[in-house]
Amino acid sequence: MSVHIPVVEKITKANDQIAELNRSLLDRHGVLGLNLLASPGAGKTSLIERTLPLLAGRLRVGVVDGDIATSLDAERAAAAGAVSVQINTGGSCHLDAPMVRTALEKLPLADLDLLVVENVGNLICPASFRLGTHFNVLVASLPEGDDKPFKYPTMYRGVDLVLLNKMDLTAHLDFDEGRFREGVRALNEDVDILPISCRSGEGLDAWSQWVEVRAAEGRIAAES
Amino acid sequence: MSVHIPVVEKITKANDQIAELNRSLLDRHGVLGLNLLASPGAGKTSLIERTLPLLAGRLRVGVVDGDIATSLDAERAAAAGAVSVQINTGGSCHLDAPMVRTALEKLPLADLDLLVVENVGNLICPASFRLGTHFNVLVASLPEGDDKPFKYPTMYRGVDLVLLNKMDLTAHLDFDEGRFREGVRALNEDVDILPISCRSGEGLDAWSQWVEVRAAEGRIAAES
Repeated sequence: MSVHIPVVEKITKANDQIAELNRSLLDRHGVLGLNLLASPGAGKTSLIERTLPLLAGRLRVGVVDGDIATSLDAERAAAAGAVSVQINTGGSCHLDAPMVRTALEKLPLADLDLLVVENVGNLICPASFRLGTHFNVLVASLPEGDDKPFKYPTMYRGVDLVLLNKMDLTAHLDFDEGRFREGVRALNEDVDILPISCRSGEGLDAWSQWVEVRAAEGRIAAES
Repeated sequence: MSVHIPVVEKITKANDQIAELNRSLLDRHGVLGLNLLASPGAGKTSLIERTLPLLAGRLRVGVVDGDIATSLDAERAAAAGAVSVQINTGGSCHLDAPMVRTALEKLPLADLDLLVVENVGNLICPASFRLGTHFNVLVASLPEGDDKPFKYPTMYRGVDLVLLNKMDLTAHLDFDEGRFREGVRALNEDVDILPISCRSGEGLDAWSQWVEVRAAEGRIAAES
């Protein structure tokens, strides 16, 4: 089994080179790229569905959906108004930069302001693969429990924003938000944590403003 | 990246050989081995905590806890009365047979009837690694959504029992149990699906009976 690590290192290096190319491509078109990460069922697809109407008329959005099987998520994103591309990973537990590269070639980047890459539902493997997007956004959710930062430190350490979803379930769960925030802070001192609910709509305005501000910064950088 | 697949195949083959040795060791001691699989936060540790008192005085239980970091789960299992061993995978997204082998060497197998291996919280990678246990038990949960069998087919195809946890949240979620059952059935025709709630206790008697029957069968086989 000792052969495994050098192979993985080589793959990671090749991945990072293609991630750099993806980043350049996005920057050239002034497109903000977000890598949306989460555990299965935390609410990534629901978040995309709820966010698109809030951005309508302000940002033109493309979605890349990564999934082991089915194109259910891409269909939901398309129905909500995004230009969407499905990547079926064929069993792989994460997206990588070459997969995203293939998807970027199918998207009209010149006509987009925002690209949301919905990664595979997994709190572990996707944390090790850069895609070339600008920000890693983690969708955490109350039913997962307040101990998850402690148990998935690599993921929590590498993200730029934590959306704490399913706040509408607060009264029905034993979730200690203070303990969760402590766990996140211990790994990632400066990260913002936004409580949201894709069901009630709580926090989604703050989230869409977070996106709009960063998309505007990206456009300014592209034009200057 | 083309080197990746043969390496993985070689690792899987080596893994399966050690899984066979683990199985023989469990069989020799008449210990039933369960591989507990789930998404992060679906309720594996809570299930172990709730199950141990139901089996107390009837089955002597050992727990092997797989986690990327922390020994929180092993501590909870020990507090609930199990002989427990923690495996920190050091970032790996799944348990494998050699890790379980190391844990088995630390456990008093002659004094146990049941070994519960709590795998890493992940619906993808653990499905590809046999551990040598007798049954794969998946803890699914309502908040994950009813589409998960469609999206994680390898996992759902390879399990011997599905526990559908967090039934106490039924009234607060849009979870279509019929759609979930259809998805499971399409992949795995004969698997039992037991609705449970670690919070309310619903279904835990049926689950502990499922365990006791299989533990008794294992003991009979070991003695004959």
